Amino acid sequence: MNHDDWVRHELRELSLSLGFRYTPPKEIEDRLTRIRAGMEKREMEGLLVVQKMNIYYLSGTTQDGLLFVPSEGKPLLMVKRELERARVESPMKEVIPLKSIREVPSLIQANRGRLPRSLGLELDILPVKDYFKFQEFFPGTPFMDASSILREARKIKSFFEIDLMREAGEIGQKVYHEATKILKKGMTEIEFGGLLEGRAKKYGHEGLLRVRSLNYEAYTWHVLSGPTGGIVSQSDSPMGGLGLSPAFPVGASLRVMKAHEPILVDFGTCYHGYQADETRMFSIGKMEQKFIDAYSACKEIHDAVLEDARPGADCETIFLKTLQLAEKLGYKDAYLGPPGLQTRFVGHGIGLELNELPFLAQGQSYPLEEGMTFAVEPKIVFPGEGSVGIENTVVVTRGGCDILTPVDQEIFQV
Amino acid sequence: MNHDDWVRHELRELSLSLGFRYTPPKEIEDRLTRIRAGMEKREMEGLLVVQKMNIYYLSGTTQDGLLFVPSEGKPLLMVKRELERARVESPMKEVIPLKSIREVPSLIQANRGRLPRSLGLELDILPVKDYFKFQEFFPGTPFMDASSILREARKIKSFFEIDLMREAGEIGQKVYHEATKILKKGMTEIEFGGLLEGRAKKYGHEGLLRVRSLNYEAYTWHVLSGPTGGIVSQSDSPMGGLGLSPAFPVGASLRVMKAHEPILVDFGTCYHGYQADETRMFSIGKMEQKFIDAYSACKEIHDAVLEDARPGADCETIFLKTLQLAEKLGYKDAYLGPPGLQTRFVGHGIGLELNELPFLAQGQSYPLEEGMTFAVEPKIVFPGEGSVGIENTVVVTRGGCDILTPVDQEIFQV
Repeated sequence: MNHDDWVRHELRELSLSLGFRYTPPKEIEDRLTRIRAGMEKREMEGLLVVQKMNIYYLSGTTQDGLLFVPSEGKPLLMVKRELERARVESPMKEVIPLKSIREVPSLIQANRGRLPRSLGLELDILPVKDYFKFQEFFPGTPFMDASSILREARKIKSFFEIDLMREAGEIGQKVYHEATKILKKGMTEIEFGGLLEGRAKKYGHEGLLRVRSLNYEAYTWHVLSGPTGGIVSQSDSPMGGLGLSPAFPVGASLRVMKAHEPILVDFGTCYHGYQADETRMFSIGKMEQKFIDAYSACKEIHDAVLEDARPGADCETIFLKTLQLAEKLGYKDAYLGPPGLQTRFVGHGIGLELNELPFLAQGQSYPLEEGMTFAVEPKIVFPGEGSVGIENTVVVTRGGCDILTPVDQEIFQV
Repeated sequence: MNHDDWVRHELRELSLSLGFRYTPPKEIEDRLTRIRAGMEKREMEGLLVVQKMNIYYLSGTTQDGLLFVPSEGKPLLMVKRELERARVESPMKEVIPLKSIREVPSLIQANRGRLPRSLGLELDILPVKDYFKFQEFFPGTPFMDASSILREARKIKSFFEIDLMREAGEIGQKVYHEATKILKKGMTEIEFGGLLEGRAKKYGHEGLLRVRSLNYEAYTWHVLSGPTGGIVSQSDSPMGGLGLSPAFPVGASLRVMKAHEPILVDFGTCYHGYQADETRMFSIGKMEQKFIDAYSACKEIHDAVLEDARPGADCETIFLKTLQLAEKLGYKDAYLGPPGLQTRFVGHGIGLELNELPFLAQGQSYPLEEGMTFAVEPKIVFPGEGSVGIENTVVVTRGGCDILTPVDQEIFQV
């Protein structure tokens, strides 16, 4: 059978039968409208999107290619591989083949009659060598940074997006509630993490969590027990864990988890690209009282953030209030990391990537808006001993916020 | 307890007790010597390394920071987070704190007396916004592309590196040989993939496979059954699979695997950052004869490549010979993908990343050298029906090559 014919006639039905949800045309239109408002403000006549998650956001497909968005008229999706599949997945009308990025200017010219007078690129992530190529292919065209336009547009989620995040949260809920049947005495952190992940995949978790960064990699097997919970590592988080080697020095290790110590499970899930992030505590036998108390403090801070979270609330103010509350509760030096290594955020925006707007953090003074989604994660760290914390992903609603990760909030004891 | 003290006094012992292997000083010296030979050839006086895998290669740690390599004298590892951990992991002498990349020039100046007259950067992967920052921080310093120097240095593996790849291969071997106990009738592709991955993690697999690319993500749950094996997707590989959604349209899907159809498992493993890549075929009940025959052809092509692989053999020639052999065996139109979508490589270099030198591919005319490692993966694709293939990772030895992935090569039938 011919591959293209098979894709044209069979792929959609097979995909739908297995739960695929395609981005509706109206979603794409709304997103383009937001992007274009940003382009207009900056007098950007064209936008060339290269990064996969932005292409997905604006076209509904992640097939390999580039997306050209003119300030007016139809966008042009140029696909290297695989063209017919992109046509099935994307509601865009203009989906054309691309052999080499060298062809991009002529394809735009053929489609629109002329090249844009200014071109936006994702300079936050575009490699320099590709930038040089675009300079060669678009001689004389001024380039502009489109990163913030895309970032701003993506910060408010639609009902469609929130629904996908809710599904991701429900996968997480199932896995957490089955985790007490999985966790056994004598298990290593990584074995537990691997089994949780396997279970989540069975329910449709996509495995990779995405971060917009050159060097930061997100993984789901963040299981830390006792002393490994007190180890800080390469990422900007309260604790990193030991990991498996200097090449992967974060998350679960080969350490056997012991009775009574705190076992922190920070396990994110991903559904149709949309992520939900959450943390819960486990123990084998009763957890030592010191950690139970610290967990209560985390929960109190978490609840206070959710109490404050509503449209108009200032993100930095919410963060600073948690510092005061942590101090009042007696955890000034252990809140969000050990002294000198404490992180300066208690929440991060989340959606297609783990580091979206908004940040509930120092220096991030702007209001929450309806439709924003973020993970809130107060954590307390005792070096050499362990760490505790709670994390939920929430969406800002008209009058407050809703939790998208409906996992029980007690400590899970086996 | 103080975090830094704990790291200084306890981290090494805990890590070693859990199997951590630190890069020996002699390894780092040898690698630096190779890098410096490349720098000298290009009259590059300094090299500023930002990408995690290159930093790991040259320093032994992946903590967040930058590495400055002068053409003469000691390299300078500047670490943002976590400094004390980097000092435990890296044999480098000069490991200093870094608050912001704005400080990099003054730290280099303080350490070496002056700034380099020319500076190499990894332009293949460095984001444009960081490049602009470096232009601001190093006014007047000419920048050069250091990508190929690093790529060339990394293409020949040391015994230390080969040993880590062999360990990765042994993890894979255990998992494949247990897979027949895991695979059950009624399972979905993704459930099988998730369980394989969980098992591999238990044995020390690091979960993420790394690719040097903006958009290409490597994952381990590449389990394709029947028709999903015939689907091409975004990556430059013979088949991509259906995946779980348009946001992750590769690898295993929620399809239930059926009896007698070919189940292709392309499962890579990672140990201390070093990867081994391999593919084997599974079936529930006896696989249909058509696919058994095609698998034999893949094995014949695979064996012919290994027969030819030795120092001095030309990479492109090896690839072109496989095209002839595939045609002779009757698979011209199905070899390496469906007509029009066939890939133009049968092998890819592998180590810390999945797309290293050498490539056994069209247009890659250069000789194999002792110490090169690559994965060879002849595959045959029938759209709408399924695909088969075999893949092993090998190291080029003085007189031939050795397999690093010692999994049985028959079809695994349950």
